[in-house]
Amino acid sequence: MALPPWALPEYFEDVLPAAAQRLEALRRQLLDQFRSYGYQLVIPPSVEYLDALVSGAGQDMDESTWKLVDRISGRTLGLRADMTPQVTRIDAHVLNRQGVTRLCYCGAVAHAMPRSTTASREPIQIGAELYGHQGIEADVEILRLLADSLKLAGATTTRIDIGHMGLFRALARHAELSEADEQLLYAILQTKDVPALREFVATRPAAAVLLPLPGLYGGPEVLVRAMSELPDLPAVHEAIGELLHLAKHLADLPLSFDLADLRGYHYHTGLVFAAYCGHSPAAVALGGRYNEVGKAFGRARPATGFSMDLRDLLALGEVAAPAGAVLAPQREDAELAALIAQLRAQGEIVMYELPGHTGAWREAGCDRRLELKDGAWRVVTLGE
Amino acid sequence: MALPPWALPEYFEDVLPAAAQRLEALRRQLLDQFRSYGYQLVIPPSVEYLDALVSGAGQDMDESTWKLVDRISGRTLGLRADMTPQVTRIDAHVLNRQGVTRLCYCGAVAHAMPRSTTASREPIQIGAELYGHQGIEADVEILRLLADSLKLAGATTTRIDIGHMGLFRALARHAELSEADEQLLYAILQTKDVPALREFVATRPAAAVLLPLPGLYGGPEVLVRAMSELPDLPAVHEAIGELLHLAKHLADLPLSFDLADLRGYHYHTGLVFAAYCGHSPAAVALGGRYNEVGKAFGRARPATGFSMDLRDLLALGEVAAPAGAVLAPQREDAELAALIAQLRAQGEIVMYELPGHTGAWREAGCDRRLELKDGAWRVVTLGE
Repeated sequence: MALPPWALPEYFEDVLPAAAQRLEALRRQLLDQFRSYGYQLVIPPSVEYLDALVSGAGQDMDESTWKLVDRISGRTLGLRADMTPQVTRIDAHVLNRQGVTRLCYCGAVAHAMPRSTTASREPIQIGAELYGHQGIEADVEILRLLADSLKLAGATTTRIDIGHMGLFRALARHAELSEADEQLLYAILQTKDVPALREFVATRPAAAVLLPLPGLYGGPEVLVRAMSELPDLPAVHEAIGELLHLAKHLADLPLSFDLADLRGYHYHTGLVFAAYCGHSPAAVALGGRYNEVGKAFGRARPATGFSMDLRDLLALGEVAAPAGAVLAPQREDAELAALIAQLRAQGEIVMYELPGHTGAWREAGCDRRLELKDGAWRVVTLGE
Repeated sequence: MALPPWALPEYFEDVLPAAAQRLEALRRQLLDQFRSYGYQLVIPPSVEYLDALVSGAGQDMDESTWKLVDRISGRTLGLRADMTPQVTRIDAHVLNRQGVTRLCYCGAVAHAMPRSTTASREPIQIGAELYGHQGIEADVEILRLLADSLKLAGATTTRIDIGHMGLFRALARHAELSEADEQLLYAILQTKDVPALREFVATRPAAAVLLPLPGLYGGPEVLVRAMSELPDLPAVHEAIGELLHLAKHLADLPLSFDLADLRGYHYHTGLVFAAYCGHSPAAVALGGRYNEVGKAFGRARPATGFSMDLRDLLALGEVAAPAGAVLAPQREDAELAALIAQLRAQGEIVMYELPGHTGAWREAGCDRRLELKDGAWRVVTLGE
């Protein structure tokens, strides 16, 4: 079937003027906030060697990454599907700082297949990452910045789900599961399939330590229950201690603990989180600890951060009315030119009339025009 | 040969914090200027059906465009190498306005092969396009906006080369050249190979009307000479009339006329131009008329515009000193929190100290710190 020449591939779209203006404004507000908190902007390329793009990110990332052939080197390149491994490469190798490094980024990423039936194949990813600090203070800062960013975007954060990969890993290690069993258990827990979990434990009694996980879901009281229901292991203590620290220092945020949440299994090493806003059933921000990703670039550093899709965020905020614009006649007149320059410097849009298009200026957004009245140029409402 | 895991493909690079901050600032200044002149931002996707991306743009564009396979449709997609055809598609089909439409854009484009040995394979293209007006006033406006944009970027415009595709096309038609001969002549003129041109004319005497072109290079006086040296054809009159209009209305710009300039042969239909800044031997901005590109999208509209690479522009402007940042202790203190919020709102960067990293804050850009002195928080210079 022939497609019309203006058709776009499925799950790709143009952002048209009104939405583009809002998206640009939001992008600036967020990057300015990141900057004021000490997060420095980096701009990695959208194409890299495939191996670098999928480092430490598992098979999901490999499948969602479009492959390209480099005519120069003959090697396989990828169109980035996620900027976080790129920013990690910059921290680990390019900047190579010894201390804490705060970085942020914003750019389009491409997914060969959409992540859901309502998702774009080209999210505009924006995020912040904190490298070099192992302590939970870094996660507190990142969660605070995330909450402040959602507020800035005009979104109401209804819930921030918090999980901890350290719990699952500690319990799976304690149960001495084979790698295949761990994968199977991961799949079971991801879907919170309790009957399957009981069946799994029936043939592997050591895995019974994992049985409480799907029930450990809710407010901070869950953490107290976890202390008694989970085995007394140092790694379990440490993970619950970190979660208690969050509950204490971020008490004003709508945190919800979910100790069976394994969404970052291929990538994350400690805390994982997902923020939900308004009535949207999908998470608008994802993040957590990923201390091992830098290893592929020569230096595993403590790392924590979050990312969001500007397109999703835009859908959550208020829609402001467009500002309108002023139409100016084509006239060689120094006073007119000075007034136009002044209006533009004040943030007004002033566009020149072009001969022969009378009456067509409303569709371009004009609501006022410059007119010469009693010897002086004035802004008047544009007639119908 | 094994590459280190952090290597980037040739002609790709990261933009690191200091440069990224400048690039972002320049991007905003330019988009704000475009906006204040009435140019509305659009954000087309970076991936489209290949046919749409290379519409009307000729073989050069097809070769520099990376191809991808769409797993959903099975069709061939392209990673955009130029945003102009995309913006033209938006004007022609998506917005489908009847009157003048001013659009602008900024985004990364990818070139499968670099355009020169010093070029990036990922220019960050920024530009403005004016649709729907056939008259030369549109080109005057676009050239004025280009000059104002280069000024804003801190670049000194040394020369704007102006050509006109209408001249070559009128003369080639008048000489009744075959398509193959026109292609050959195009190649000869592009390299200004005068001996080859004489040889060409020797076997095709009708083409002698093109002989003056390579000599018609310089200031507005060239246009007067062109009037007498070129044949008396309506299309020649029209083209020279447009160039004379530019010379009159843009007399303050360093215009240089080059009537053998055919850089937009595959794409442009009228005026073509290239701006040169500082000591850079390569053009920093290219543009012109391309009235036929919209036809592929169902509607050929008068169109003129320009585009630049933000990376090139960045290299031309002044380098401002980085602003520094303030280090804040981790302390639960309402006065401290209020002061930090105030400093951030004033545009200062305030980053929290994280425990155990004493002394490592200078590499993160800190030059001051918040200290409690005599019961009040103050900003003091960070000690060595």
